[in-house]
Amino acid sequence: MDTLPWMINGEYQQFISADSRGYHYGDGLFETIRVQDQVALNLPMHIQRMHSGLRTLGIAANLELIESQVQKYMHQLQLPTVARLKIIVSRGGAARGYSCATSAPAHIAIGCSPYEDVTEELQKKGIQLRFCAMRLSLNPVLAGIKHLNRLEQVLARAEWQDDRIFEGLMFDTDDNLVEGTMSNLFLVVNDVLRTPAIDRCGVSGVMRREILDRIAPELGIDTEVGRLTRHDLRAADEVFITNSLIGSLSCRQCEDLHWAVGPMRLRIQNAIDHYRARSARHLQ
Amino acid sequence: MDTLPWMINGEYQQFISADSRGYHYGDGLFETIRVQDQVALNLPMHIQRMHSGLRTLGIAANLELIESQVQKYMHQLQLPTVARLKIIVSRGGAARGYSCATSAPAHIAIGCSPYEDVTEELQKKGIQLRFCAMRLSLNPVLAGIKHLNRLEQVLARAEWQDDRIFEGLMFDTDDNLVEGTMSNLFLVVNDVLRTPAIDRCGVSGVMRREILDRIAPELGIDTEVGRLTRHDLRAADEVFITNSLIGSLSCRQCEDLHWAVGPMRLRIQNAIDHYRARSARHLQ
Repeated sequence: MDTLPWMINGEYQQFISADSRGYHYGDGLFETIRVQDQVALNLPMHIQRMHSGLRTLGIAANLELIESQVQKYMHQLQLPTVARLKIIVSRGGAARGYSCATSAPAHIAIGCSPYEDVTEELQKKGIQLRFCAMRLSLNPVLAGIKHLNRLEQVLARAEWQDDRIFEGLMFDTDDNLVEGTMSNLFLVVNDVLRTPAIDRCGVSGVMRREILDRIAPELGIDTEVGRLTRHDLRAADEVFITNSLIGSLSCRQCEDLHWAVGPMRLRIQNAIDHYRARSARHLQ
Repeated sequence: MDTLPWMINGEYQQFISADSRGYHYGDGLFETIRVQDQVALNLPMHIQRMHSGLRTLGIAANLELIESQVQKYMHQLQLPTVARLKIIVSRGGAARGYSCATSAPAHIAIGCSPYEDVTEELQKKGIQLRFCAMRLSLNPVLAGIKHLNRLEQVLARAEWQDDRIFEGLMFDTDDNLVEGTMSNLFLVVNDVLRTPAIDRCGVSGVMRREILDRIAPELGIDTEVGRLTRHDLRAADEVFITNSLIGSLSCRQCEDLHWAVGPMRLRIQNAIDHYRARSARHLQ
Protein backbone atom coordinates (compact mmCIF):
# COMPACT_ATOMS: atom_id res chain seq x y z
CA MET A 1 0.00 0.00 0.00
CA ASP A 2 1.29 3.36 -0.96
CA THR A 3 1.30 6.75 0.71
CA LEU A 4 -2.09 8.44 0.96
CA PRO A 5 -2.90 11.86 -0.48
CA TRP A 6 -2.24 15.04 1.46
CA MET A 7 -5.06 17.17 2.71
CA ILE A 8 -3.90 20.78 2.50
CA ASN A 9 -6.12 23.28 4.30
CA GLY A 10 -9.03 20.92 3.93
CA GLU A 11 -8.52 20.04 0.25
CA TYR A 12 -6.94 16.89 -1.13
CA GLN A 13 -3.92 18.05 -3.09
CA GLN A 14 -0.26 17.13 -3.35
CA PHE A 15 1.19 20.64 -3.40
CA ILE A 16 1.76 23.62 -1.18
CA SER A 17 2.48 27.21 -2.13
CA ALA A 18 6.12 27.96 -2.99
CA ASP A 19 5.67 31.02 -0.73
CA SER A 20 4.98 28.85 2.33
CA ARG A 21 6.70 30.05 5.48
CA GLY A 22 7.10 26.41 6.44
CA TYR A 23 9.24 25.89 3.35
CA HIS A 24 11.23 29.14 3.54
CA TYR A 25 11.94 29.29 7.27
CA GLY A 26 10.70 26.08 8.87
CA ASP A 27 8.18 28.42 10.50
CA GLY A 28 5.88 25.80 11.98
CA LEU A 29 5.70 22.43 13.67
CA PHE A 30 4.49 18.91 13.15
CA GLU A 31 3.13 15.85 14.87
CA THR A 32 3.68 12.22 13.94
CA ILE A 33 0.91 10.00 15.25
CA ARG A 34 0.50 6.26 15.27
CA VAL A 35 -2.76 5.14 13.69
CA GLN A 36 -3.81 1.62 14.53
CA ASP A 37 -7.04 0.05 13.31
CA GLN A 38 -8.28 3.50 12.22
CA VAL A 39 -7.61 5.05 15.62
CA ALA A 40 -5.18 7.96 16.05
CA LEU A 41 -3.50 6.97 19.31
CA ASN A 42 -2.98 9.58 22.00
CA LEU A 43 -4.53 12.22 19.75
CA PRO A 44 -5.45 14.57 22.62
CA MET A 45 -1.83 14.55 23.86
CA HIS A 46 -0.55 15.29 20.35
CA ILE A 47 -3.00 18.15 19.98
CA GLN A 48 -2.01 19.41 23.42
CA ARG A 49 1.70 19.41 22.55
CA MET A 50 0.92 21.12 19.26
CA HIS A 51 -1.09 23.74 21.11
CA SER A 52 1.79 24.46 23.44
CA GLY A 53 4.29 24.67 20.56
CA LEU A 54 2.06 26.94 18.48
CA ARG A 55 1.72 29.28 21.43
CA THR A 56 5.51 29.48 21.82
CA LEU A 57 5.93 30.17 18.11
CA GLY A 58 3.13 32.74 18.19
CA ILE A 59 1.14 30.95 15.49
CA ALA A 60 -2.58 31.45 15.86
CA ALA A 61 -4.19 28.21 14.77
CA ASN A 62 -7.69 26.91 15.26
CA LEU A 63 -7.14 23.61 17.08
CA GLU A 64 -10.74 22.52 16.64
CA LEU A 65 -10.37 23.04 12.91
CA ILE A 66 -7.21 20.93 12.91
CA GLU A 67 -8.91 18.17 14.87
CA SER A 68 -11.97 18.21 12.63
CA GLN A 69 -9.76 18.01 9.53
CA VAL A 70 -7.90 15.05 11.03
CA GLN A 71 -11.22 13.32 11.74
CA LYS A 72 -12.46 14.07 8.22
CA TYR A 73 -9.21 12.77 6.71
CA MET A 74 -9.35 9.57 8.72
CA HIS A 75 -13.04 9.10 8.00
CA GLN A 76 -12.80 9.67 4.25
CA LEU A 77 -9.68 7.65 3.53
CA GLN A 78 -9.04 3.98 4.11
CA LEU A 79 -5.95 4.07 6.31
CA PRO A 80 -3.56 1.11 6.58
CA THR A 81 -3.90 -1.09 9.70
CA VAL A 82 -0.81 0.55 11.18
CA ALA A 83 0.03 3.97 9.81
CA ARG A 84 2.01 7.13 10.42
CA LEU A 85 -0.23 10.19 10.40
CA LYS A 86 1.60 13.48 10.01
CA ILE A 87 0.13 16.90 10.76
CA ILE A 88 2.15 19.95 9.75
CA VAL A 89 0.99 23.37 10.91
CA SER A 90 2.92 26.36 9.62
CA ARG A 91 2.43 30.10 9.95
CA GLY A 92 0.06 31.59 7.40
CA GLY A 93 0.95 34.39 5.00
CA ALA A 94 3.64 34.45 2.35
CA ALA A 95 7.35 34.44 3.11
CA ARG A 96 8.42 38.04 2.49
CA GLY A 97 11.16 38.43 5.03
CA TYR A 98 11.17 37.07 8.56
CA SER A 99 8.52 39.49 9.77
CA CYS A 100 5.29 37.64 10.37
CA ALA A 101 2.71 40.30 11.09
CA THR A 102 -0.09 38.41 9.42
CA SER A 103 -3.74 37.72 9.92
CA ALA A 104 -3.62 34.86 7.45
CA PRO A 105 -4.86 31.62 8.97
CA ALA A 106 -2.31 28.92 9.81
CA HIS A 107 -1.52 26.42 7.07
CA ILE A 108 -2.57 22.86 7.86
CA ALA A 109 -1.24 19.78 6.06
CA ILE A 110 -2.35 16.26 6.93
CA GLY A 111 -0.77 13.18 5.39
CA CYS A 112 -0.47 9.47 6.07
CA SER A 113 1.76 6.59 5.08
CA PRO A 114 1.85 2.93 6.08
CA TYR A 115 4.08 2.12 9.02
CA GLU A 116 5.78 -1.20 9.47
CA ASP A 117 6.66 -2.22 13.01
CA VAL A 118 10.16 -3.61 13.56
CA THR A 119 10.45 -7.39 13.44
CA GLU A 120 9.48 -9.55 16.40
CA GLU A 121 13.12 -10.55 16.60
CA LEU A 122 14.33 -6.97 17.06
CA GLN A 123 11.58 -6.36 19.58
CA LYS A 124 12.80 -9.36 21.57
CA LYS A 125 16.56 -9.05 21.15
CA GLY A 126 16.82 -5.28 21.22
CA ILE A 127 18.25 -2.82 18.76
CA GLN A 128 21.69 -1.48 18.06
CA LEU A 129 22.56 2.22 18.52
CA ARG A 130 25.45 4.47 17.62
CA PHE A 131 26.72 7.82 18.84
CA CYS A 132 26.21 10.74 16.45
CA ALA A 133 28.89 13.34 15.93
CA MET A 134 26.29 16.04 15.19
CA ARG A 135 25.34 17.94 18.33
CA LEU A 136 22.04 19.44 19.39
CA SER A 137 22.39 23.17 19.88
CA LEU A 138 20.90 24.80 22.96
CA ASN A 139 17.89 27.06 22.68
CA PRO A 140 15.57 26.94 25.71
CA VAL A 141 12.79 28.78 23.83
CA LEU A 142 12.61 26.15 21.09
CA ALA A 143 13.38 23.16 23.33
CA GLY A 144 10.65 20.53 23.42
CA ILE A 145 8.84 21.75 20.32
CA LYS A 146 8.59 19.43 17.33
CA HIS A 147 9.27 22.35 15.00
CA LEU A 148 10.22 22.22 11.34
CA ASN A 149 13.89 23.16 11.85
CA ARG A 150 15.26 19.64 11.72
CA LEU A 151 18.63 19.94 9.97
CA GLU A 152 20.50 18.65 13.01
CA GLN A 153 18.47 15.45 12.93
CA VAL A 154 18.84 15.09 9.15
CA LEU A 155 22.63 15.46 9.35
CA ALA A 156 22.86 13.16 12.37
CA ARG A 157 20.86 10.49 10.53
CA ALA A 158 23.10 10.90 7.49
CA GLU A 159 26.11 9.77 9.54
CA TRP A 160 25.42 6.07 9.06
CA GLN A 161 24.21 3.79 6.28
CA ASP A 162 24.53 0.47 8.12
CA ASP A 163 20.97 -0.93 8.26
CA ARG A 164 21.75 -2.90 11.40
CA ILE A 165 21.95 0.37 13.33
CA PHE A 166 18.43 1.44 14.22
CA GLU A 167 19.05 4.77 15.88
CA GLY A 168 21.77 7.32 16.70
CA LEU A 169 22.15 8.99 20.07
CA MET A 170 22.73 12.73 20.18
CA PHE A 171 24.55 14.87 22.71
CA ASP A 172 24.05 18.58 23.15
CA THR A 173 26.90 21.04 22.69
CA ASP A 174 27.62 20.71 26.43
CA ASP A 175 28.19 16.92 26.17
CA ASN A 176 24.90 15.96 27.75
CA LEU A 177 23.09 12.97 26.35
CA VAL A 178 19.69 14.14 25.05
CA GLU A 179 17.84 11.78 22.73
CA GLY A 180 17.94 9.79 19.51
CA THR A 181 17.52 11.38 16.10
CA MET A 182 13.83 10.41 16.12
CA SER A 183 13.23 9.04 19.61
CA ASN A 184 13.55 9.80 23.30
CA LEU A 185 15.88 7.90 25.55
CA PHE A 186 15.32 6.10 28.86
CA LEU A 187 17.88 4.53 31.17
CA VAL A 188 17.18 2.15 34.02
CA VAL A 189 19.61 2.63 36.89
CA ASN A 190 18.96 0.74 40.15
CA ASP A 191 15.30 0.33 39.24
CA VAL A 192 14.88 4.08 38.67
CA LEU A 193 13.77 5.18 35.23
CA ARG A 194 15.92 8.11 34.11
CA THR A 195 15.51 10.29 31.05
CA PRO A 196 17.24 13.49 29.90
CA ALA A 197 15.58 16.83 30.60
CA ILE A 198 14.23 18.50 27.45
CA ASP A 199 14.58 22.06 28.73
CA ARG A 200 17.41 23.32 26.52
CA CYS A 201 17.10 21.20 23.37
CA GLY A 202 15.38 18.07 22.12
CA VAL A 203 11.81 17.05 21.44
CA SER A 204 9.36 16.43 24.24
CA GLY A 205 7.95 13.20 22.83
CA VAL A 206 4.34 12.26 23.47
CA MET A 207 5.34 8.67 24.32
CA ARG A 208 7.98 10.00 26.73
CA ARG A 209 5.35 12.13 28.45
CA GLU A 210 2.92 9.22 28.50
CA ILE A 211 5.52 7.07 30.27
CA LEU A 212 6.53 9.78 32.75
CA ASP A 213 3.04 11.03 33.52
CA ARG A 214 0.88 7.91 33.38
CA ILE A 215 2.58 4.58 32.82
CA ALA A 216 5.46 4.80 35.31
CA PRO A 217 3.23 6.07 38.17
CA GLU A 218 0.66 3.35 37.44
CA LEU A 219 3.38 0.69 37.54
CA GLY A 220 4.95 2.18 40.66
CA ILE A 221 8.21 2.97 38.86
CA ASP A 222 10.28 5.88 40.16
CA THR A 223 11.37 8.37 37.53
CA GLU A 224 14.08 11.00 37.38
CA VAL A 225 14.42 13.72 34.75
CA GLY A 226 17.73 15.57 34.55
CA ARG A 227 21.11 15.87 32.87
CA LEU A 228 22.57 12.57 31.72
CA THR A 229 25.99 11.88 30.26
CA ARG A 230 27.85 9.13 28.48
CA HIS A 231 28.92 7.92 31.90
CA ASP A 232 25.29 7.34 32.94
CA LEU A 233 24.72 5.35 29.80
CA ARG A 234 27.67 3.13 30.67
CA ALA A 235 26.30 2.59 34.17
CA ALA A 236 22.75 1.78 33.03
CA ASP A 237 21.24 -1.65 33.66
CA GLU A 238 18.79 -1.25 30.84
CA VAL A 239 18.35 1.23 27.98
CA PHE A 240 15.41 1.83 25.69
CA ILE A 241 14.12 4.38 23.22
CA THR A 242 10.57 5.56 22.66
CA ASN A 243 8.43 7.42 20.20
CA SER A 244 4.76 7.45 19.24
CA LEU A 245 5.25 5.09 16.31
CA ILE A 246 7.50 2.44 17.82
CA GLY A 247 6.22 2.65 21.38
CA SER A 248 9.41 1.44 23.06
CA LEU A 249 12.40 -0.61 21.91
CA SER A 250 15.12 -2.14 24.07
CA CYS A 251 18.69 -1.27 23.17
CA ARG A 252 21.27 -4.03 23.46
CA GLN A 253 24.33 -2.24 22.16
CA CYS A 254 25.83 1.16 21.39
CA GLU A 255 29.36 0.89 20.05
CA ASP A 256 31.39 -0.57 22.96
CA LEU A 257 28.47 -0.49 25.42
CA HIS A 258 26.20 -3.51 25.95
CA TRP A 259 23.04 -3.86 27.97
CA ALA A 260 20.75 -6.68 28.94
CA VAL A 261 17.27 -6.61 27.38
CA GLY A 262 15.68 -6.01 30.71
CA PRO A 263 12.28 -6.38 32.31
CA MET A 264 11.37 -2.74 32.90
CA ARG A 265 10.97 -1.87 29.24
CA LEU A 266 8.82 -4.98 28.82
CA ARG A 267 6.47 -3.88 31.60
CA ILE A 268 6.19 -0.46 30.00
CA GLN A 269 5.59 -1.87 26.53
CA ASN A 270 2.86 -4.11 27.95
CA ALA A 271 1.18 -1.01 29.33
CA ILE A 272 1.51 0.68 25.93
CA ASP A 273 0.04 -2.39 24.18
CA HIS A 274 -2.78 -2.51 26.69
CA TYR A 275 -3.61 1.15 26.07
CA ARG A 276 -3.49 0.65 22.30
CA ALA A 277 -5.86 -2.31 22.44
CA ARG A 278 -8.23 -0.45 24.74
CA SER A 279 -8.22 2.64 22.51
CA ALA A 280 -9.06 0.52 19.50
CA ARG A 281 -12.02 -1.13 21.27
CA HIS A 282 -13.20 2.08 22.84
CA LEU A 283 -13.18 4.28 19.79
CA GLN A 284 -14.41 1.95 17.11
CA MET B 1 4.79 45.86 -9.55
CA ASP B 2 4.01 42.56 -7.98
CA THR B 3 6.00 39.48 -7.17
CA LEU B 4 7.14 37.44 -10.16
CA PRO B 5 6.32 33.76 -10.69
CA TRP B 6 8.44 31.00 -9.20
CA MET B 7 10.49 28.75 -11.40
CA ILE B 8 10.48 25.31 -9.78
CA ASN B 9 12.98 22.84 -11.23
CA GLY B 10 12.94 24.77 -14.50
CA GLU B 11 9.16 25.16 -14.82
CA TYR B 12 7.11 28.23 -14.00
CA GLN B 13 4.70 27.17 -11.27
CA GLN B 14 3.60 28.48 -7.89
CA PHE B 15 3.67 25.22 -5.98
CA ILE B 16 6.07 22.68 -4.58
CA SER B 17 5.41 19.10 -3.53
CA ALA B 18 3.92 18.66 -0.06
CA ASP B 19 6.58 15.93 0.38
CA SER B 20 9.43 18.45 -0.02
CA ARG B 21 12.28 17.92 2.42
CA GLY B 22 12.69 21.70 2.45
CA TYR B 23 9.18 22.00 3.89
CA HIS B 24 9.34 19.06 6.32
CA TYR B 25 12.83 19.56 7.75
CA GLY B 26 14.27 22.80 6.36
CA ASP B 27 16.65 20.44 4.59
CA GLY B 28 18.25 22.94 2.22
CA LEU B 29 19.54 26.48 1.88
CA PHE B 30 18.87 29.72 0.09
CA GLU B 31 20.46 32.82 -1.36
CA THR B 32 19.01 36.30 -1.53
CA ILE B 33 20.59 38.33 -4.30
CA ARG B 34 20.24 41.96 -5.24
CA VAL B 35 19.26 42.44 -8.85
CA GLN B 36 19.87 45.89 -10.24
CA ASP B 37 19.18 46.87 -13.85
CA GLN B 38 18.77 43.17 -14.73
CA VAL B 39 22.13 42.23 -13.24
CA ALA B 40 22.40 39.73 -10.36
CA LEU B 41 25.09 41.38 -8.26
CA ASN B 42 27.91 39.26 -6.86
CA LEU B 43 26.34 36.16 -8.38
CA PRO B 44 29.60 34.15 -8.40
CA MET B 45 30.05 34.80 -4.66
CA HIS B 46 26.48 33.72 -3.97
CA ILE B 47 26.96 30.56 -6.00
CA GLN B 48 30.25 29.93 -4.21
CA ARG B 49 28.62 30.26 -0.79
CA MET B 50 25.78 28.00 -1.89
CA HIS B 51 28.32 25.46 -3.11
CA SER B 52 30.07 25.46 0.23
CA GLY B 53 26.79 25.12 2.14
CA LEU B 54 25.49 22.33 -0.08
CA ARG B 55 28.71 20.41 0.49
CA THR B 56 28.33 20.72 4.27
CA LEU B 57 24.71 19.56 4.09
CA GLY B 58 25.68 16.71 1.76
CA ILE B 59 23.25 17.83 -0.94
CA ALA B 60 24.46 16.95 -4.40
CA ALA B 61 23.35 19.78 -6.66
CA ASN B 62 24.40 20.70 -10.15
CA LEU B 63 25.64 24.28 -9.76
CA GLU B 64 25.83 24.85 -13.52
CA LEU B 65 22.19 23.83 -13.78
CA ILE B 66 21.29 26.29 -11.01
CA GLU B 67 23.22 29.08 -12.71
CA SER B 68 21.67 28.35 -16.09
CA GLN B 69 18.18 28.37 -14.55
CA VAL B 70 18.92 31.70 -12.90
CA GLN B 71 20.08 33.10 -16.24
CA LYS B 72 17.00 31.71 -18.00
CA TYR B 73 14.72 33.16 -15.32
CA MET B 74 16.31 36.58 -15.54
CA HIS B 75 16.32 36.49 -19.34
CA GLN B 76 12.70 35.39 -19.74
CA LEU B 77 11.13 37.67 -17.15
CA GLN B 78 11.13 41.42 -16.94
CA LEU B 79 12.63 42.03 -13.51
CA PRO B 80 12.06 45.26 -11.58
CA THR B 81 14.89 47.82 -11.64
CA VAL B 82 15.88 46.81 -8.13
CA ALA B 83 14.79 43.36 -7.07
CA ARG B 84 15.31 40.59 -4.57
CA LEU B 85 16.13 37.30 -6.30
CA LYS B 86 15.77 34.24 -4.11
CA ILE B 87 17.20 30.82 -4.88
CA ILE B 88 16.17 27.92 -2.65
CA VAL B 89 17.93 24.59 -3.08
CA SER B 90 16.66 21.70 -1.01
CA ARG B 91 17.49 18.03 -0.87
CA GLY B 92 15.70 15.90 -3.45
CA GLY B 93 13.51 12.92 -2.64
CA ALA B 94 10.41 12.78 -0.50
CA ALA B 95 10.36 13.36 3.25
CA ARG B 96 9.96 9.85 4.69
CA GLY B 97 11.94 10.15 7.88
CA TYR B 98 15.18 12.01 8.36
CA SER B 99 17.21 9.50 6.37
CA CYS B 100 18.22 11.02 3.07
CA ALA B 101 19.81 8.20 1.10
CA THR B 102 18.52 9.48 -2.20
CA SER B 103 19.66 9.77 -5.76
CA ALA B 104 16.89 12.26 -6.52
CA PRO B 105 18.25 15.52 -7.91
CA ALA B 106 18.21 18.58 -5.67
CA HIS B 107 15.08 20.72 -5.78
CA ILE B 108 15.65 24.21 -7.20
CA ALA B 109 13.26 27.14 -6.69
CA ILE B 110 13.93 30.59 -8.12
CA GLY B 111 11.75 33.59 -7.33
CA CYS B 112 11.89 37.34 -7.45
CA SER B 113 10.13 40.30 -5.89
CA PRO B 114 10.64 44.06 -6.17
CA TYR B 115 12.95 45.55 -3.58
CA GLU B 116 12.64 49.09 -2.31
CA ASP B 117 15.77 50.71 -0.94
CA VAL B 118 15.43 52.54 2.35
CA THR B 119 14.80 56.27 2.07
CA GLU B 120 17.63 58.71 1.36
CA GLU B 121 16.95 60.15 4.78
CA LEU B 122 17.58 56.86 6.57
CA GLN B 123 20.66 56.29 4.47
CA LYS B 124 21.97 59.67 5.59
CA LYS B 125 20.81 59.75 9.21
CA GLY B 126 21.27 56.12 10.03
CA ILE B 127 18.87 53.51 11.31
CA GLN B 128 17.65 52.51 14.71
CA LEU B 129 18.35 49.06 16.20
CA ARG B 130 17.14 47.06 19.17
CA PHE B 131 18.44 44.10 21.13
CA CYS B 132 16.58 40.84 20.61
CA ALA B 133 15.82 38.52 23.51
CA MET B 134 15.94 35.45 21.25
CA ARG B 135 19.43 33.94 21.20
CA LEU B 136 21.32 32.22 18.40
CA SER B 137 22.17 28.66 19.38
CA LEU B 138 25.66 27.33 18.76
CA ASN B 139 26.30 24.71 16.12
CA PRO B 140 29.70 25.00 14.42
CA VAL B 141 28.68 22.59 11.63
CA LEU B 142 25.74 24.74 10.56
CA ALA B 143 27.40 28.10 11.28
CA GLY B 144 27.76 30.36 8.27
CA ILE B 145 25.26 28.50 6.10
CA LYS B 146 22.12 30.30 4.94
CA HIS B 147 20.07 27.18 5.59
CA LEU B 148 16.31 26.89 5.79
CA ASN B 149 16.15 26.48 9.60
CA ARG B 150 15.29 30.08 10.39
CA LEU B 151 12.94 29.94 13.37
CA GLU B 152 15.35 31.86 15.58
CA GLN B 153 15.31 34.76 13.10
CA VAL B 154 11.52 34.61 12.72
CA LEU B 155 10.98 34.72 16.48
CA ALA B 156 13.60 37.46 16.95
CA ARG B 157 11.91 39.56 14.25
CA ALA B 158 8.54 38.99 15.92
CA GLU B 159 9.77 40.77 19.05
CA TRP B 160 9.00 44.23 17.73
CA GLN B 161 6.29 45.95 15.70
CA ASP B 162 7.64 49.51 15.86
CA ASP B 163 8.36 50.48 12.23
CA ARG B 164 11.02 52.95 13.29
CA ILE B 165 13.22 50.05 14.36
CA PHE B 166 14.93 48.72 11.27
CA GLU B 167 16.81 45.76 12.66
CA GLY B 168 17.33 43.70 15.83
CA LEU B 169 20.73 42.60 17.09
CA MET B 170 21.16 39.02 18.22
CA PHE B 171 23.49 37.48 20.79
CA ASP B 172 24.47 33.85 20.93
CA THR B 173 23.72 31.70 23.96
CA ASP B 174 27.16 32.64 25.34
CA ASP B 175 26.35 36.39 25.28
CA ASN B 176 28.46 37.19 22.26
CA LEU B 177 27.10 39.70 19.79
CA VAL B 178 26.69 37.96 16.42
CA GLU B 179 24.53 39.71 13.83
CA GLY B 180 21.17 41.23 13.02
CA THR B 181 18.12 39.11 12.20
CA MET B 182 18.79 39.63 8.49
CA SER B 183 22.14 41.41 8.36
CA ASN B 184 25.75 41.21 9.47
CA LEU B 185 27.24 43.69 11.87
CA PHE B 186 30.35 45.87 11.69
CA LEU B 187 31.88 48.06 14.38
CA VAL B 188 34.52 50.73 13.89
CA VAL B 189 36.87 50.96 16.87
CA ASN B 190 39.94 53.20 16.58
CA ASP B 191 39.75 53.02 12.78
CA VAL B 192 39.74 49.23 12.83
CA LEU B 193 36.75 47.50 11.26
CA ARG B 194 35.56 44.74 13.56
CA THR B 195 32.93 42.09 12.92
CA PRO B 196 31.84 39.00 14.86
CA ALA B 197 33.25 35.62 13.87
CA ILE B 198 30.67 33.36 12.22
CA ASP B 199 32.26 30.10 13.30
CA ARG B 200 29.68 28.88 15.83
CA CYS B 201 26.44 30.46 14.62
CA GLY B 202 25.21 33.17 12.27
CA VAL B 203 25.17 33.63 8.52
CA SER B 204 28.32 34.34 6.58
CA GLY B 205 26.88 37.15 4.46
CA VAL B 206 28.12 37.72 0.94
CA MET B 207 28.32 41.49 1.54
CA ARG B 208 30.27 40.85 4.76
CA ARG B 209 32.75 38.67 2.84
CA GLU B 210 32.95 41.26 0.06
CA ILE B 211 33.88 43.93 2.60
CA LEU B 212 36.40 41.76 4.47
CA ASP B 213 38.04 40.22 1.39
CA ARG B 214 37.97 43.00 -1.17
CA ILE B 215 36.67 46.40 -0.13
CA ALA B 216 38.52 46.90 3.18
CA PRO B 217 41.90 45.78 1.74
CA GLU B 218 41.42 48.04 -1.31
CA LEU B 219 40.64 51.00 0.95
CA GLY B 220 43.52 50.20 3.30
CA ILE B 221 41.20 49.55 6.23
CA ASP B 222 42.36 47.10 8.91
CA THR B 223 39.87 44.42 9.85
CA GLU B 224 39.47 42.15 12.82
CA VAL B 225 37.16 39.13 13.08
CA GLY B 226 36.49 37.68 16.52
CA ARG B 227 34.19 37.56 19.52
CA LEU B 228 32.37 40.80 20.23
CA THR B 229 30.18 41.69 23.17
CA ARG B 230 27.72 44.34 24.23
CA HIS B 231 30.71 46.16 25.74
CA ASP B 232 32.40 46.44 22.34
CA LEU B 233 29.22 47.87 20.90
CA ARG B 234 29.20 50.52 23.58
CA ALA B 235 32.81 51.41 22.84
CA ALA B 236 32.34 51.61 19.06
CA ASP B 237 32.89 54.90 17.20
CA GLU B 238 30.69 53.79 14.36
CA VAL B 239 28.29 50.88 13.76
CA PHE B 240 26.76 49.62 10.56
CA ILE B 241 24.92 46.59 9.22
CA THR B 242 25.26 44.94 5.83
CA ASN B 243 23.53 42.49 3.56
CA SER B 244 23.35 41.89 -0.17
CA LEU B 245 20.13 43.84 -0.60
CA ILE B 246 20.81 46.93 1.48
CA GLY B 247 24.56 47.09 0.94
CA SER B 248 25.39 48.91 4.17
CA LEU B 249 23.42 51.10 6.56
CA SER B 250 24.76 53.25 9.39
CA CYS B 251 23.26 52.68 12.81
CA ARG B 252 22.69 55.73 14.95
CA GLN B 253 21.00 54.16 17.94
CA CYS B 254 20.34 50.90 19.76
CA GLU B 255 18.26 51.41 22.89
CA ASP B 256 20.51 53.50 25.19
CA LEU B 257 23.50 53.43 22.85
CA HIS B 258 24.15 56.19 20.30
CA TRP B 259 26.73 56.45 17.55
CA ALA B 260 27.80 59.08 15.08
CA VAL B 261 27.01 58.35 11.45
CA GLY B 262 30.67 58.06 10.61
CA PRO B 263 32.88 58.25 7.57
CA MET B 264 34.06 54.65 7.32
CA ARG B 265 30.69 53.21 6.38
CA LEU B 266 30.38 55.96 3.75
CA ARG B 267 33.70 54.99 2.16
CA ILE B 268 32.60 51.36 2.10
CA GLN B 269 29.18 52.20 0.64
CA ASN B 270 30.88 54.27 -2.05
CA ALA B 271 32.93 51.21 -2.97
CA ILE B 272 29.75 49.11 -3.06
CA ASP B 273 27.99 51.69 -5.26
CA HIS B 274 31.01 51.83 -7.54
CA TYR B 275 30.99 48.05 -7.93
CA ARG B 276 27.23 48.01 -8.60
CA ALA B 277 27.51 50.66 -11.30
CA ARG B 278 30.47 48.89 -12.91
CA SER B 279 28.65 45.52 -12.86
CA ALA B 280 25.65 47.05 -14.56
CA ARG B 281 27.77 48.61 -17.32
CA HIS B 282 29.95 45.55 -17.71
CA LEU B 283 27.26 42.92 -17.93
CA GLN B 284 24.62 44.64 -20.01
